[in-house]
Amino acid sequence: MKVLVLGGDGFCGWPSALHLAAHNHEVVIVDNLERRKIDVELQVESLTPIKPISTRLSTWESLGDADQSGIGNPIGFVSLNVAQDYDQLLSLIQEFQPDTIVHFAEQRAAPYSMKSHRHKVYTVDNNVNATHHVLAAMVESGIDCHLVHLGTMGVYGYDGADVAIPEGYLTINYPDRQGQPVEKEILYPANPGSVYHMTKTLDQLLFQFYVKNDKLRITDLHQGIVWGTQTEETRLHPDLINRFDYDGDFGTVLNRFLMQAAVDYPLTVHGTGGQTRAFINIQDTVTCIRLAVENPPTAGERVKVMNQMTETHRVRDLAKLVCDKTGARMEFVDNPRQEADENELIVQNNHLLGLGLNPITLEDGLLDESIEIAEKYKARCDLHRVPCVSLWRTVKEDREDVELAQASVV
Amino acid sequence: MKVLVLGGDGFCGWPSALHLAAHNHEVVIVDNLERRKIDVELQVESLTPIKPISTRLSTWESLGDADQSGIGNPIGFVSLNVAQDYDQLLSLIQEFQPDTIVHFAEQRAAPYSMKSHRHKVYTVDNNVNATHHVLAAMVESGIDCHLVHLGTMGVYGYDGADVAIPEGYLTINYPDRQGQPVEKEILYPANPGSVYHMTKTLDQLLFQFYVKNDKLRITDLHQGIVWGTQTEETRLHPDLINRFDYDGDFGTVLNRFLMQAAVDYPLTVHGTGGQTRAFINIQDTVTCIRLAVENPPTAGERVKVMNQMTETHRVRDLAKLVCDKTGARMEFVDNPRQEADENELIVQNNHLLGLGLNPITLEDGLLDESIEIAEKYKARCDLHRVPCVSLWRTVKEDREDVELAQASVV
Repeated sequence: MKVLVLGGDGFCGWPSALHLAAHNHEVVIVDNLERRKIDVELQVESLTPIKPISTRLSTWESLGDADQSGIGNPIGFVSLNVAQDYDQLLSLIQEFQPDTIVHFAEQRAAPYSMKSHRHKVYTVDNNVNATHHVLAAMVESGIDCHLVHLGTMGVYGYDGADVAIPEGYLTINYPDRQGQPVEKEILYPANPGSVYHMTKTLDQLLFQFYVKNDKLRITDLHQGIVWGTQTEETRLHPDLINRFDYDGDFGTVLNRFLMQAAVDYPLTVHGTGGQTRAFINIQDTVTCIRLAVENPPTAGERVKVMNQMTETHRVRDLAKLVCDKTGARMEFVDNPRQEADENELIVQNNHLLGLGLNPITLEDGLLDESIEIAEKYKARCDLHRVPCVSLWRTVKEDREDVELAQASVV
Repeated sequence: MKVLVLGGDGFCGWPSALHLAAHNHEVVIVDNLERRKIDVELQVESLTPIKPISTRLSTWESLGDADQSGIGNPIGFVSLNVAQDYDQLLSLIQEFQPDTIVHFAEQRAAPYSMKSHRHKVYTVDNNVNATHHVLAAMVESGIDCHLVHLGTMGVYGYDGADVAIPEGYLTINYPDRQGQPVEKEILYPANPGSVYHMTKTLDQLLFQFYVKNDKLRITDLHQGIVWGTQTEETRLHPDLINRFDYDGDFGTVLNRFLMQAAVDYPLTVHGTGGQTRAFINIQDTVTCIRLAVENPPTAGERVKVMNQMTETHRVRDLAKLVCDKTGARMEFVDNPRQEADENELIVQNNHLLGLGLNPITLEDGLLDESIEIAEKYKARCDLHRVPCVSLWRTVKEDREDVELAQASVV
């Protein structure tokens, strides 16, 4: 298939693009390199040394061999801001005629989205316009292609312990005007915990409308927290290595813990660490993306929602697992987020399992690879960037601190 | 109270600003005059001759008298694009320190939002960013003010005949993991019928998040279709007259019918005209806005949703009412929208009735005033602008027609 990967230079986008190409899909990456520019803004780098996109792509192509395995299949690249350059996006779709658009082109960090009012405004503007531009351009182009979007488990929120979180839809009952029960299937009520997560709940409503009005074919993947760094394809050459973010904004919890252990920094657990969250390994992420691409819904079908996660853990249990493996220690710090201290979480993920996903679990040793990465590159770590400095509720004094910090960043 | 009226030069904003001033609130209008610029784009004018904003305001002030009635209380004006000029909006809020912000600063026409991909993109970008800027600026300013937002009955959709549409929230049941019933109150599931209506469902999620995270005080008014032109205050001087839109994009259904009758043009009824919709007179709109301003929720309270409508009618019954009063005839045309041909609609509106709203009904003679307005200004009507040319689903040929039409507009 012909696949456009929007945001294909990022943490999930890059290994997904490689994986799709290795499976003989014709891939073009669209990216404005915004994620790299945010590194500059935050004065932080991926723990792993990542190469310029042109080097990544030429190295990948140089790995091509005669056995037709798919490795090294050329990947195109277009520099374009999906949230701003509507006309260019439309032209690209009209010219390339993709079968599938995979959409990762959104700001993806909750703490970054809460850093200041500017970051809130940027996140909403960028994410909503990016998604809407893709939808409007799909309609306008008249090309029948399938959109695969990376959503988040965070759209459901974490107060739903009473049910196993379903895949997108909840069957409800309520009394009608005569008091008789009405049964209806609705989109699971949104309960986002940050401005970032909120943008993904807005995306959901955009998808519902465009499927209803224009019969677009859309898959929305509600992903858990990703851990791990390398995939089969990124492992093939050092130039292809994936990002490993450990900073307080973009570092997801498990990778942050692993790096903290590697540099002998106490594992900072927010609050009681009783938050239960859903997880998935990066190798499984790219497999899921491919499975979604290869199994599109039909026209007229409702938005296909799949929960892209493989296991749930309490944050303090994760910290303990890492401590046990590495000898590191834990430190409980105030929780900057506004969330329940403790929650249960049970999630349905039958869709992707049914398509053939065979989960990599934290227990089965692949965690070791992440520890090795953290160990190998620890000299590149800037310890000052580890704490999360974004506060979910800003009191005046905090705000002034943040502004001073920002002023010093510029 | 000190009240900022965002979008205070528009059809609902202008008479609301006057009404609030007349009731001794200190009013500043914020508007970038975008609505007037859209008239230029569409080559259409309000049927009523509307004066420049500066004339409107100076005439209003000149009506001030010594009896302290509130008539003529000065109204400030700031030209500012709420969706683009975040910093200016923030400064304005910090300087003016409003008790209330009334937010009308959104593109408000469903057909306009469906005209072309450019209009879709504009509507989403403008409306979502405008609302989000207001919210982020309220938090950032640290000022405890109340937001009153004009939503739409269209967020509920028109397939809910089984219940009386509640005011924002629906109590539902579903089985928990043990099969025991869980009862929960949720935001009524969104079911918008156009890109414009969709933006108001996005607004709802923005409000839910900011109330949860930042304890903002927000009232969301889900308004029906407005009919009528004049209010107590706009009637005081010809320079204060309100807009009367009759074109296929911005003309709401009843005003469009009245104008069609006045110029002896058949009343164009979409489909079977069996669509049942909620209505409210413009005088009641301004009263409701004032009631909302004067009755804010408390901090920590959920978003206060009130249905701002007073009666429901089937479109063909409205057409018949106008025909009976004027001798006009009806013409059934293909429905450009994607909506059910026939629907029932029962709506709860106890909140505003409880605050003292005393509805003006279509039957009670005020309809006559609208007929007079249509009659008086009919010479200003451009008949070519009456049909709705926006199609909800674009097939290729239609799209080319629209593009040709647009090309000729430029």
